Amino acid sequence: MAKDKKPRRPRAETPKGFRDYFGAEVAERNQMLSQIAEVYHLYGFDPLETAAVETVEALGKYLPDVDRPNEGVFAWEEDGDWLALRYDLTAPLARVAAQFRNDLPNPYRRYAMGPVWRNEKPGPGRYRQFYQCDADTVGSASPAADAEICAMLSDTLEAVGIPRGDYVIRVNSRKVLNGVLTSVTRGAERNDIERMTAAELSDYKTFELKGLEEDPAKDAIMRTLDKFDKVGVDGVFNLLTGGRHDQSGAFIDGVNLSDEMAKGYVEFLQARGQSNEETLANLRRILRFSAIGMEGVHELETIASLLAAQGYDSDRIVIDPSVVRGLGYYTGPVYEAELTFEITDEKGRKQQFGSVAGGGRYDDLVKRFTGQAVPATGVSIGVDRLLAALRAKGRMDGKSAGPVVVTVMDRNRMAEYQAMVGELRQAGIPAEVYLGNPKNFGNQLKYADKRLSPVAVIQGEDEAARGVVQVKDLVLGAKIAENASLEEWKSQPAQREIARADLVVEIRKMLEGEV
Amino acid sequence: MAKDKKPRRPRAETPKGFRDYFGAEVAERNQMLSQIAEVYHLYGFDPLETAAVETVEALGKYLPDVDRPNEGVFAWEEDGDWLALRYDLTAPLARVAAQFRNDLPNPYRRYAMGPVWRNEKPGPGRYRQFYQCDADTVGSASPAADAEICAMLSDTLEAVGIPRGDYVIRVNSRKVLNGVLTSVTRGAERNDIERMTAAELSDYKTFELKGLEEDPAKDAIMRTLDKFDKVGVDGVFNLLTGGRHDQSGAFIDGVNLSDEMAKGYVEFLQARGQSNEETLANLRRILRFSAIGMEGVHELETIASLLAAQGYDSDRIVIDPSVVRGLGYYTGPVYEAELTFEITDEKGRKQQFGSVAGGGRYDDLVKRFTGQAVPATGVSIGVDRLLAALRAKGRMDGKSAGPVVVTVMDRNRMAEYQAMVGELRQAGIPAEVYLGNPKNFGNQLKYADKRLSPVAVIQGEDEAARGVVQVKDLVLGAKIAENASLEEWKSQPAQREIARADLVVEIRKMLEGEV
Repeated sequence: MAKDKKPRRPRAETPKGFRDYFGAEVAERNQMLSQIAEVYHLYGFDPLETAAVETVEALGKYLPDVDRPNEGVFAWEEDGDWLALRYDLTAPLARVAAQFRNDLPNPYRRYAMGPVWRNEKPGPGRYRQFYQCDADTVGSASPAADAEICAMLSDTLEAVGIPRGDYVIRVNSRKVLNGVLTSVTRGAERNDIERMTAAELSDYKTFELKGLEEDPAKDAIMRTLDKFDKVGVDGVFNLLTGGRHDQSGAFIDGVNLSDEMAKGYVEFLQARGQSNEETLANLRRILRFSAIGMEGVHELETIASLLAAQGYDSDRIVIDPSVVRGLGYYTGPVYEAELTFEITDEKGRKQQFGSVAGGGRYDDLVKRFTGQAVPATGVSIGVDRLLAALRAKGRMDGKSAGPVVVTVMDRNRMAEYQAMVGELRQAGIPAEVYLGNPKNFGNQLKYADKRLSPVAVIQGEDEAARGVVQVKDLVLGAKIAENASLEEWKSQPAQREIARADLVVEIRKMLEGEV
Repeated sequence: MAKDKKPRRPRAETPKGFRDYFGAEVAERNQMLSQIAEVYHLYGFDPLETAAVETVEALGKYLPDVDRPNEGVFAWEEDGDWLALRYDLTAPLARVAAQFRNDLPNPYRRYAMGPVWRNEKPGPGRYRQFYQCDADTVGSASPAADAEICAMLSDTLEAVGIPRGDYVIRVNSRKVLNGVLTSVTRGAERNDIERMTAAELSDYKTFELKGLEEDPAKDAIMRTLDKFDKVGVDGVFNLLTGGRHDQSGAFIDGVNLSDEMAKGYVEFLQARGQSNEETLANLRRILRFSAIGMEGVHELETIASLLAAQGYDSDRIVIDPSVVRGLGYYTGPVYEAELTFEITDEKGRKQQFGSVAGGGRYDDLVKRFTGQAVPATGVSIGVDRLLAALRAKGRMDGKSAGPVVVTVMDRNRMAEYQAMVGELRQAGIPAEVYLGNPKNFGNQLKYADKRLSPVAVIQGEDEAARGVVQVKDLVLGAKIAENASLEEWKSQPAQREIARADLVVEIRKMLEGEV
């Protein structure tokens, strides 16, 4: 006879790549989100909350093929439709901007904050669900919209606790990048665009764009320029020409440009000067033969001068030609917030914290739905990275004081214990009665310890009769408290007897003394 | 030759049963969530945020069968595992309490707030994603834990703006319900449990539980009792006996109990007296032959007396035998928050708003994972319903004032316009420069109107030269503003000229005048 198999118990585990957030981790993130929301609100952005679930069709990019859609998103079929969890907050914005285009204000300025999901291989510190916090202006082509996003990003970083000097917002333009591609590649053609008529300029721009489209090396060059931060001037030069050996000794193929062309790119990457004015002068010189490039430079000039007029100088927001930010997606100014302080990584090496936010101008998202291009610009803050940065700097500790714990010495006096916590809560002090089995007093103290309680309150029959309570400062007594007997506990100097009537006043004093 | 089909544009639509939340809808919900979190925190509950995605195995209840799991959840297969969106916040808590049982404080008191997803047929006002806001104490068998949740629920409702008198928290006990089932069914057996020894009582309780387990009519009776609010005394009586015709005239089969037994249930449902004391006295009388029932009554007595000692009297928290709250899940006290004011439904009929929160004691969730029963009690607030209630009462309007809009009369003065909004933001006043195409001034005013801006600021060359700006009170001038020409606009009495230097002071005055 076959043995009956007992049903296996379910495993109590999060799915791979997901995690739980406890206590102060949640509170600190919520606090940061509301600080960010406050700045976004001051700038006139309006909240939008879309559902976690979108149709795969509306999300775009990932289309269902046979049984299941491509990797990258979590998707499933539901009544014949493919649904998916959003992978960012921009795709849902594009859908909303198209769906409600007749009702929304124009420009539509919205912020959104919430989790997004990526069906990617998880790694250390890389999870499949994480928070983003975006603000976008849809329907404005003005560089003032880009400038404003940069200023807001600066204000936001300071609002959440990154002091001035510990961050920099680097601004570049996709047009400048495209311009340098055409002007370096076509270095021989010295067209003086400054002297062209408007019609000639327009023709020349079309000619440039066509060249750009047909340039087979374009993506490889962009990707190489994007490595400047990591591999430096020589690294980029080698990768643009014959190739180089990386740190592991492996040989990385180069793009096989001529040395002269590679020099042109390297000159461009190093065009950042001591001030935004100097950088812009360098860019004007380098890009003087590109109509696209000069358009980008003019936009950057406008952005820099608007920001300077508002007091955002190059100590906060800096024009930096080496910012690339991915491929294809952006169409105008791009920006990136970088934290400039060093942290020590798990191997004890010092390194710059790096990027915590980025964005730029993009014009094609709404077009997918409506056929009409709508100019848009926006930023996305990586909230979890920003929290990690504040923790690395010791400005948040992922811990927070627990409630005052009123211990239970006498089960029959539960109502009186509840009255004590009631008074404390009325005074705005988090408090609770110990609700586990009160038999083992040590367990009550261990509990208070685990909750990081600042104060424990003790009142037995004897104290009750005398109208007093014992209050124990657990911050002072934390270590001794563990495993202490009631007698040891009572002998600690951090414990005092106070009048029952003074409970709130005395505990408030203890809490304020800690700060 | 076959015609080439143009690729169809994606539809800009939310999936069926999902929706977007705009502006004040989001802000009001966030405000409510943080008001609730504040009360929960004061009561010593610690935040927990789990991922939206769980394994189907951990969620339980819905197990994958063949190609796709049962209805009810959104689920999909990923690398051989079935994953699903959480359908409530209790199942993830059970998983966390099991997974981290060695590290968490005991009792573990956590709150959680966030969206949950139900794969159910959407209906008017019923969405497939909605918010819940839960607080639970895991690891405490004490009725004090239940009493505390009720007190906290009361405080929470008042904190979000439901005044005392507009709500009531109704408390019952699953043990009392089970007790009435055994004592009405076994009405003939008059066992005087008050005189039993502890051993006799325990035997009798086992006997009662066995009878309950074997009672084929149990679920049907519970379901019928749960209809008391809707069909009243006669309705329940008929449904317990031979059946009745519902409003549409259709005949609903009855449970076919004897009239005498049905009378017993009806007496129980009406056992609520003028005060909790009276109700408890009634319950003691009705349940005097049931060991289970009397255990439930004693727990309710403890809860009522703890609450009364803290000043929560029957104007706020009331023992009510007619609360049933579903089947099977709960094992002890159950509670439900009901809003008692009337609203007018879409057909103009007045009706009570009804339930906005509920919960109770349950002991089996963690057991699925660990084999050990862990006592737990908790509450879930339906945030979206509570928001709807506040809107129905006119205490929230789903609208909020937009930013001050600085219009663009002169493109070249963008820096100065930006400086104005910078000053306003510094003073904590949301503000923005109009970033659309400034050519059509009417569009700028329409924009301000759509944003519900309280004030528009206008400064052309002329005003700039004289060091003044025009400020327009849009709340007063909203209607006239639409489609007005610049000349008409300027003639409105709601528009004034002020010194540029007084911008912040004057606008603050205008905003405060409105409040």
